[in-house]
Amino acid sequence: MTRVVEVREQAVRLEAAIRNSLVDFSQMTVSVVAVVSDRVVGGRPVVGLGFNSIGRYAQSGMLRDRFIPRLLDADPDALVGDDGELDPGVVRDLVMRNEKPGGHGERSGAVAALEIAVWDLAAKLAGVPLYRLLADRYNDGAYDPSVDVYAAGGYYYPGEDGTDRLVAEMRGYLEEGYTHLKMKIGGASLDEDIERLEAVLELVGDGSRLAVDANGRFDLETAIAYGERMEPYGLRWYEEAGDPLDYALQAELGRHYEPPFATAENLFSHQDVRNLLRYAGLRPEVDLLQMDPGLSYGIVELDRMLDVLRDEGWSPRRVIPHGGHLMALHMAAGMQLGGNESYPGIFQPFGGFGRQHEVVDGAIAISDEPGIGLEHKDELRPVLAELVPEAFA
Amino acid sequence: MTRVVEVREQAVRLEAAIRNSLVDFSQMTVSVVAVVSDRVVGGRPVVGLGFNSIGRYAQSGMLRDRFIPRLLDADPDALVGDDGELDPGVVRDLVMRNEKPGGHGERSGAVAALEIAVWDLAAKLAGVPLYRLLADRYNDGAYDPSVDVYAAGGYYYPGEDGTDRLVAEMRGYLEEGYTHLKMKIGGASLDEDIERLEAVLELVGDGSRLAVDANGRFDLETAIAYGERMEPYGLRWYEEAGDPLDYALQAELGRHYEPPFATAENLFSHQDVRNLLRYAGLRPEVDLLQMDPGLSYGIVELDRMLDVLRDEGWSPRRVIPHGGHLMALHMAAGMQLGGNESYPGIFQPFGGFGRQHEVVDGAIAISDEPGIGLEHKDELRPVLAELVPEAFA
Repeated sequence: MTRVVEVREQAVRLEAAIRNSLVDFSQMTVSVVAVVSDRVVGGRPVVGLGFNSIGRYAQSGMLRDRFIPRLLDADPDALVGDDGELDPGVVRDLVMRNEKPGGHGERSGAVAALEIAVWDLAAKLAGVPLYRLLADRYNDGAYDPSVDVYAAGGYYYPGEDGTDRLVAEMRGYLEEGYTHLKMKIGGASLDEDIERLEAVLELVGDGSRLAVDANGRFDLETAIAYGERMEPYGLRWYEEAGDPLDYALQAELGRHYEPPFATAENLFSHQDVRNLLRYAGLRPEVDLLQMDPGLSYGIVELDRMLDVLRDEGWSPRRVIPHGGHLMALHMAAGMQLGGNESYPGIFQPFGGFGRQHEVVDGAIAISDEPGIGLEHKDELRPVLAELVPEAFA
Repeated sequence: MTRVVEVREQAVRLEAAIRNSLVDFSQMTVSVVAVVSDRVVGGRPVVGLGFNSIGRYAQSGMLRDRFIPRLLDADPDALVGDDGELDPGVVRDLVMRNEKPGGHGERSGAVAALEIAVWDLAAKLAGVPLYRLLADRYNDGAYDPSVDVYAAGGYYYPGEDGTDRLVAEMRGYLEEGYTHLKMKIGGASLDEDIERLEAVLELVGDGSRLAVDANGRFDLETAIAYGERMEPYGLRWYEEAGDPLDYALQAELGRHYEPPFATAENLFSHQDVRNLLRYAGLRPEVDLLQMDPGLSYGIVELDRMLDVLRDEGWSPRRVIPHGGHLMALHMAAGMQLGGNESYPGIFQPFGGFGRQHEVVDGAIAISDEPGIGLEHKDELRPVLAELVPEAFA
């Protein structure tokens, strides 16, 4: 039986001189977690690696004060499943002991980084890529060898004037192999945003290839005003118009705007997702859901969310996770979701999927290294090597 | 103009060898925050003090990594309101910069401890008790000189057998001057819980003086089964039967049980409270709300919650905050809420209100020391003196 001998965490600053309509990303940090096992292969310990997605903050305090100690204090026999091997689901239940219900934020990212690192370890111990382990565990062995991705960018840059930089950025994504794009709205006036939008529409040719994201900034009146101006373009989706918890706003907006909506990146539990599906008036055949497992307790919780979806008449294909990270790419492949976000070039060292994952015709053929493969991403490898040098020696 | 010169935080372990139906409290910690100003009175700095309530965890990491640095990095001029004095509302907005919407948990406690400490400082600088400052700011000067409190106890103790200890505990509360009591359910079988309940009912004589709390443990079937057995007693309230975010469960339970419900201690934002009022089928004239400002961003957010209540046809009198702490006692007095929880004797050093606050006929006449008066609570004073010795020299 493999044992966990140590867990390390490091907060890493995001490289990003950009903002959306609400947030300056240059201050943001990410928790990288390494779960070191006593299994040695080729003279190096087998190590599980994970992080808590992109766009919120590191959770060093909670990981060190609560979640890592609970894992390390446990009897190693208490961490295994029925097959006698380290079981991420068992670990998740264990680290969530003495946690009260409700309040699904922050700790959901701390637990996610740790749980996903345990999944990476479990997949490496089994000698399979994570998506294959997920397919076997959750999806009757079925998986997608290739995952559709879209390029999310179009942020507001300090001192930016006009649309030249934006159009050049978006053209770059198309040249890289992306076919579907997303840009921000709500960080400028409605007229300026429409100008930005039309400049990009001219590039992509068709609204079905372009989505827009308001990052939860709008009140109902503004959301409807944007909707009225944007409706003729037939955009791929209109994302997070209002506060993520204002289901009534979303339901009312749905009475004023017909094309698809997308939301849920800021809902971090299956209970919150269930409320969204119950109360926000979203349409199972039209709209999209963007939960980010890296911010919401990890993969066991994603499976619970998918159960909620099925209960409410939704297909897992309606889920396109937020975050643009390799962890969610495996989940999309192994649990047959509807695709995955990508932040090409930005949010380093975490954004994107690494050289082994080329984008061809808007999709990525997922590679077959054991685990998640974070250590094969050039920008991330030095960060990981600093955290667990013995695994990279 | 008074300036903030330093902010200190210390995690303090809760003294409690007890559990409810979900949680072992002996592992729980609380963040105590001290906001040190450059104002000196009697040779000592004026210091604002606060903590993040009782029953979740300290938030040392987030306070040190995000919220305290934002406050200390700010231009002091950016912390004052229109009157040129340190303004807790302005501070709250400032420390919440670069925080995304949604995910209201954990950070809501971190911000609460800091924001309430700033309120304590503002009240001390103004030379008034906090409840008077709140009355002036939020309530047209009106306040309650006395606040109804109820004794919350009746936890499950390790190795407990029979109801003798429970009845003795509850009798002690009545002898201390409490008239209304609360006990836990859901940590034993339904039959055992009914036996416990009947033993306490025999003591208090009337169900309207006794509430029960399931701590969100029940599924719908169990919630209804408990409701059917308890309905004849006409209890004061049936608290948090199901998961705090499962509004549909609460709404369905309301079709099976007529006496009052209470909930909301695990909803940490006005957005979550708004969803509760929209979707859970609660009755403005019957049911009670128990939001805890010490876990949910503090007093500015409580005011936003009260606005949501009024929008939905509820009176602030329907709010009886969770937490049993002196901070909420001031809010209940100064914003004319419906009462306050009390944990007499347990959850030290934070539980209860200090010797200056005697319980007479189920109510507390609030004392008039400037600020909140945490430093006048015997059990808490040594903790605070260790954190800011120069204020206690």
